[in-house]
Amino acid sequence: MNFNRIKRKFSKDELHDLGFSEKLTGSNRAINNDGSFNVKRIGRSTTTIQDVYNDLITMSWGKFGLIVLLWFILINSFFAIIYLLLGTEYLNGAKGHELLEQFLDCFFFSAQTLSTVGYGHLSPSNYWMSGVAAFECLLGLLGFALATGLLYGRFSRPSAKVLFSENIIIAPYREGHGLMFRIVNGRKTQLIETELQVIYSIMVDEDDKRIRRYFDLKLERAKVNFFPMSWTVVHPINEKSILFGYTQDQLLDAEMEILISLKAFDEIYSQTVYARHSYNYSDLIRGARFIPMISKQNGISVLSLDLLHEYEKVELSELIVSETPGD
Amino acid sequence: MNFNRIKRKFSKDELHDLGFSEKLTGSNRAINNDGSFNVKRIGRSTTTIQDVYNDLITMSWGKFGLIVLLWFILINSFFAIIYLLLGTEYLNGAKGHELLEQFLDCFFFSAQTLSTVGYGHLSPSNYWMSGVAAFECLLGLLGFALATGLLYGRFSRPSAKVLFSENIIIAPYREGHGLMFRIVNGRKTQLIETELQVIYSIMVDEDDKRIRRYFDLKLERAKVNFFPMSWTVVHPINEKSILFGYTQDQLLDAEMEILISLKAFDEIYSQTVYARHSYNYSDLIRGARFIPMISKQNGISVLSLDLLHEYEKVELSELIVSETPGD
Amino acid sequence: MNFNRIKRKFSKDELHDLGFSEKLTGSNRAINNDGSFNVKRIGRSTTTIQDVYNDLITMSWGKFGLIVLLWFILINSFFAIIYLLLGTEYLNGAKGHELLEQFLDCFFFSAQTLSTVGYGHLSPSNYWMSGVAAFECLLGLLGFALATGLLYGRFSRPSAKVLFSENIIIAPYREGHGLMFRIVNGRKTQLIETELQVIYSIMVDEDDKRIRRYFDLKLERAKVNFFPMSWTVVHPINEKSILFGYTQDQLLDAEMEILISLKAFDEIYSQTVYARHSYNYSDLIRGARFIPMISKQNGISVLSLDLLHEYEKVELSELIVSETPGD
Amino acid sequence: MNFNRIKRKFSKDELHDLGFSEKLTGSNRAINNDGSFNVKRIGRSTTTIQDVYNDLITMSWGKFGLIVLLWFILINSFFAIIYLLLGTEYLNGAKGHELLEQFLDCFFFSAQTLSTVGYGHLSPSNYWMSGVAAFECLLGLLGFALATGLLYGRFSRPSAKVLFSENIIIAPYREGHGLMFRIVNGRKTQLIETELQVIYSIMVDEDDKRIRRYFDLKLERAKVNFFPMSWTVVHPINEKSILFGYTQDQLLDAEMEILISLKAFDEIYSQTVYARHSYNYSDLIRGARFIPMISKQNGISVLSLDLLHEYEKVELSELIVSETPGD
Repeated sequence: MNFNRIKRKFSKDELHDLGFSEKLTGSNRAINNDGSFNVKRIGRSTTTIQDVYNDLITMSWGKFGLIVLLWFILINSFFAIIYLLLGTEYLNGAKGHELLEQFLDCFFFSAQTLSTVGYGHLSPSNYWMSGVAAFECLLGLLGFALATGLLYGRFSRPSAKVLFSENIIIAPYREGHGLMFRIVNGRKTQLIETELQVIYSIMVDEDDKRIRRYFDLKLERAKVNFFPMSWTVVHPINEKSILFGYTQDQLLDAEMEILISLKAFDEIYSQTVYARHSYNYSDLIRGARFIPMISKQNGISVLSLDLLHEYEKVELSELIVSETPGD
Repeated sequence: MNFNRIKRKFSKDELHDLGFSEKLTGSNRAINNDGSFNVKRIGRSTTTIQDVYNDLITMSWGKFGLIVLLWFILINSFFAIIYLLLGTEYLNGAKGHELLEQFLDCFFFSAQTLSTVGYGHLSPSNYWMSGVAAFECLLGLLGFALATGLLYGRFSRPSAKVLFSENIIIAPYREGHGLMFRIVNGRKTQLIETELQVIYSIMVDEDDKRIRRYFDLKLERAKVNFFPMSWTVVHPINEKSILFGYTQDQLLDAEMEILISLKAFDEIYSQTVYARHSYNYSDLIRGARFIPMISKQNGISVLSLDLLHEYEKVELSELIVSETPGD
Repeated sequence: MNFNRIKRKFSKDELHDLGFSEKLTGSNRAINNDGSFNVKRIGRSTTTIQDVYNDLITMSWGKFGLIVLLWFILINSFFAIIYLLLGTEYLNGAKGHELLEQFLDCFFFSAQTLSTVGYGHLSPSNYWMSGVAAFECLLGLLGFALATGLLYGRFSRPSAKVLFSENIIIAPYREGHGLMFRIVNGRKTQLIETELQVIYSIMVDEDDKRIRRYFDLKLERAKVNFFPMSWTVVHPINEKSILFGYTQDQLLDAEMEILISLKAFDEIYSQTVYARHSYNYSDLIRGARFIPMISKQNGISVLSLDLLHEYEKVELSELIVSETPGD
Repeated sequence: MNFNRIKRKFSKDELHDLGFSEKLTGSNRAINNDGSFNVKRIGRSTTTIQDVYNDLITMSWGKFGLIVLLWFILINSFFAIIYLLLGTEYLNGAKGHELLEQFLDCFFFSAQTLSTVGYGHLSPSNYWMSGVAAFECLLGLLGFALATGLLYGRFSRPSAKVLFSENIIIAPYREGHGLMFRIVNGRKTQLIETELQVIYSIMVDEDDKRIRRYFDLKLERAKVNFFPMSWTVVHPINEKSILFGYTQDQLLDAEMEILISLKAFDEIYSQTVYARHSYNYSDLIRGARFIPMISKQNGISVLSLDLLHEYEKVELSELIVSETPGD
C-alpha cells in the first residue's frame, strides 16, 4: 500500500500556516470532531481565576448546579461549626440538646444568615455571635453575587450554534465535481456577515518523513451577508484544487482532515461569534447530492432542519479524484 | 401581461449572493417589512438554553412580566405543597385549620422564603422544614439572579432604532433620476461610522423558470462618519443601474423587493449595532421629492422627525424607468 | 469686509461628506465644544425603553441618586396606601392610632418588604395582606435588580477621557508651518491603536449662497499604536492644505470650525471607545509653540498633565496663512 | 567605548512612530518587563469615577476583599452612631447598658439592616429609627449591587494570558540567523486570529544627541488563525533587518529594548484581548535554540508548558550580528 502514499514537497505558498509543529502532529487525529485540537497540555498548572471562570461558564448545567449546592452546604457547615464553638446558648431559639441537633440549629441559622432570609426565630444573642453572623451575611451576599453573575453569564454567553451536515460529499458541480458540506443556523437569531475558512490537512511523505500538512481550501463563496436558510459550501475540485488527481485510497492513507472555522455577527448579542467543526476521511461520501432542505408550502418557504444530513447517491460522470496514483 | 416579464440571464458578477436557494423563493414576499426573512423553520426543535434566552430578551415587556409572575406563583405553589406534606404543625405561626388556609399559610411562608424577606411570623420549627426552606432560599436567590440579569439585559440591549421613510421614491437627481429613501436616527445617541448596504431583488424568467434574483444597489454615498441629521440615501438611476430601462409595470410584475441593512457604532453602548428594513413595489412612488426635515429656527438647526415620511409630487422630466418593454 | 469672504466652488472629491444638509447649517456653530452637534430635534417623541436607559446611564450621579430615592419613596407610599386600605388591624405590630401614624406603620412595613429586610416586628396577619406583601417583594427584587444593573452600568461604562489642549495653534513646522493641537490620555489605562480624524469646516460663498463646507484635514500622523505620553497632532500647512493661502480675517469671516474624532481600544474594558472635540476660530492662536509636557526627573520620564494647555508665543517666519486675499 | 555607539540618521520610513517624545526617552528603560510604559504622570489629578472603577477592577483580590470589608465596617459604624444618637430605647431588643454595648447593639442592627438579613430580634420602634433604617436598606442594596458588579467584573474580565519565554535568542535560521522568542497560550481557551507586532528600540547618536529610536521588526509570520500549541516567533536577521551588521557590544551600548504587542480574539469571552511583553538586552542569548515543547506520548501530541523557557546552546556558524563596528 505504501506506494499509494502522497510523496510531494509543497512550496511555502501552498501551505496554510496553522501554528502547528509539523513534525510532531502524527498519525492521530489532529482535530476533534467539535473543532477542538487534540493536544494535551502538561506542566505549569498555574490555574488563574480566569481559568476557574472559564470552567464555571462552560461546564454543564447539572455540574454547575451541583457545585453551587455543594458550596452552599460546605460554607454553611463551616459557619455552623463556628457557631457551635461559640455556644448554642447564645443562639436565641435554638432548642437542640444533642450535638447533632445543636449542629443542625447552627446550620440552619447559618443558612438563614447566608441567604439573608433571617426569619428571626433563630437569632444571635451575644456580640461574638452577632459579629460572625454579620461577616457571614457579607460573605453570603458577595457569594450569591458571584453565583448570580455566573448564572447569568452562562445563560447569556454569545455563541453560534451552527449545525453541520454529518457528511462531506463529492457531488457533481458545474462541468466537474465539488467537495461540499451543508450548514444551517441552529438558532432563530440572524447571523450577519458570516464568513467561512476551510483548512484541508493530509499526511505527506517529505524526504522520507511523514508530516502533516495544512492547506487553505478555496471556496466558491466564502462569505454571505445574511444566512436565513441553509448554505451548501462548495470547494470546486478543478486543476487548481489540492484534491485534484488523488485517488480515494490515497486520501484515506493520507489521513485527510478538514477543519472549518466560521465567524459571524450575532444580532441578538451584538457580538462576533465563532464556531468550528471538523470532518475526517470517514465522513467523506463520494458521489452524492444533498436533498434540498427548502420547500414551498402554501406559498411560504419552509426550511426543514431534519433534512440537513440527507443526501442521495449519484453517479459521478468522471473521476476527478482519480483512481490512478498521482505524481 | 406575460410579455412584460423580465427575461434575462444575469451574469454571476452582477448578482448579489445572499445565500438564498434561488429556485424556491417564489412569488411571496421574501423579506418582511421589518427586514426579517419570510422563512418558516420546521423539524429538529432542539431548543437550546440560548434560544430561551433570546426569547426572554426579545419578547414584549408585558409578556416578560407575566412570565416572571407566573414563575413566582408556580414555584411558591410547588414549595407550599411540600410544606403542606411535611405538616403545618411544624410551621411556627401558621394558624390555618382548613386545607385552603393551611395551603395559604404554606404559600406565603414560601413566598417570604423565596424572596428572603423572612418576616419570621412564620418560621420552620423542625429540621426537615428548615432544610427545605434553606434549599428554597438558595433556589430563590439564584432565580432572582437570573430574572435580574434578564431584566437588565432587556433594558440595556444595544440596538439601533433607525427610522425609515414609509416610501421609497423616484426623484429628480442631478441630470437624471434617483431611487431614494430617507432615514433618521430615532434615538438621541450618536451613531458613528454608519454604513448602508442595499440589496435589490426581482423575479426574472431564466430558461422559462421564474426565479428571484438579488443585486447590490450602488449608492451615491454608502457611509457617513456622523449621522446627526436626516440622511437621504440615493441610488442614481443611470445606465449602470439595474433599474435602468424597465417600465413600472415590469417592476410590479417582477415583484420588486428592496432590503436595506444598516451597520453603525453606538456611542452609549460602545457596540456595533445593526438595523434592517425592507421596501416592496407597493412602497414605491414615482415622481416625488422628500420635504426637507431640517429648518432654521432662531439660528438653530431644527430636525422635525414628523416630516420623515413627507414628500411632494413632482413631474419627472424624462422617464428613466421607461414605459417601453426592456430586453 | 465682504470682499474678504471665501468664494470658491469645491469639487466633490475635496469635500468631506458628513451627512449634513449643507444649505441649512448656517451661521451658528454647527458643532459644540464637546463634539456634540448643534441640532434640535422636534416631533415624534416616541421615547423607547432604550432612551430611558441612555438617560439613566448618562445623567449625573446626583440626579441618578435622587431618582432612585424618589422611586423608593413613591413606591413605598403607593403600597402603604394599599395596606392602609386593607386595614392596619391585619398588620401585626402596628401600633399607630391616628391616620398619619397608621400610614407610617404601613410605609415602613412596605419599605421592609420591598427591601426584603423583613425584621418581622411588623408582619401581615391575613391572607390579603400577605398576598400584596408577596407581590411587593417580587416587585422590589426586580426593581433593585434594575437599579443594580444601572448603577453598575454607569460605573463600568467604557469611555475614553482624552484631554485636548484649550487652543489650536499655528506653529513652525519643518520648513513651513503646521496647525497643531495636543492631546493626552486623561486616564491611567492604556489606549491602543488610537486613530484620529480631523474635519475642517468653513462657510463659503457658492453661487451667491453661503453654505458650510466640510473637509478632511490631512495629518502628519493619524494613528499611533500606543499612546502613553502626550501627542501633538500636526496638520502641515503646505500647498496641498485647504488652509493654504487664506488670511486670518478670511478664516474668521468664514466661521472656521474643526471637529476631531478619536477612536481607540481601551485595554481595561476590552472595548473600542470614541471621543470627540471641537475647536472654532476663537480657539486659534497664530504663532505659538506648545511647551513640552515631558521632562526627565531622576532619569524617569515625567508627564506633567498641568502643562497640556501651555504654549509660548513665537514669531512665524513667513505667513503661510497669508494676509493677501486668496483666489 | 564611545566609538562603539550607533551613529546613524534613520529615514522617516524606517522608523516606527510610537507617539513617544524622542528627545526625552533617555537612558532608562522605556518599557517595563510587563509591557507597561515607564512614565510617571503628575499634575491634574482629576480622578474620575472610571479611574476608581479601573483601580477596583485591576487591584489584587486581597486588597479588593479588604476594601469591601472596611467599607462594610465603616458604613455600619456610621449608621450605628446615628442610631445611638436617636437613642437605643427606640430599638426593640437592644439590651446594652454601657455605651460600648449600646454601640454594638446599634452596629449589629445596622449590619442586619444593611445586609437585609433582618432577624427581627432587633427592630426599630419609632418612626425616626424606621426611617433611617429604611434609608440604610436602600443604601445597602445599592452598595451590594455595586460590590456584586465589581466582583463579577473582576472575575469575568477578558484578558489574554500569553506566556513569553524568559529569553529572546539568536538562533540558526534557514541559511542565516534569526531573532526568536517563544509564546504559548497560558489558558485553556482558544485564541483566534492571533496577531503580533514587534517593536525594536535602540539609542542612537543623531547629530551628537542620544535619542531613542523605534523600529518595526519584520516577522517570518505575524498572524496565526489558531494557536493551540507553542509559537516560536522569528525575525530573520538578513540584509533587510535593522539588527544586521551590529556587534553585540553595540546593541548593549545602544540599550536595546523590544516591545511585543499581541492581539487575539478570545472564544470564551467573545472579545478581542491584548497582551504586551518587553525584552531588553540582558534577556538576549546569542547562539541558542529552543527545546521543543511538543512531544508524542501514546500517539497524542503533548505540550509541556514547563519547557517554555528551555533552550540549548548552539554554535552560530557565522556572525550575522557581527563583531565589526557598523557604519
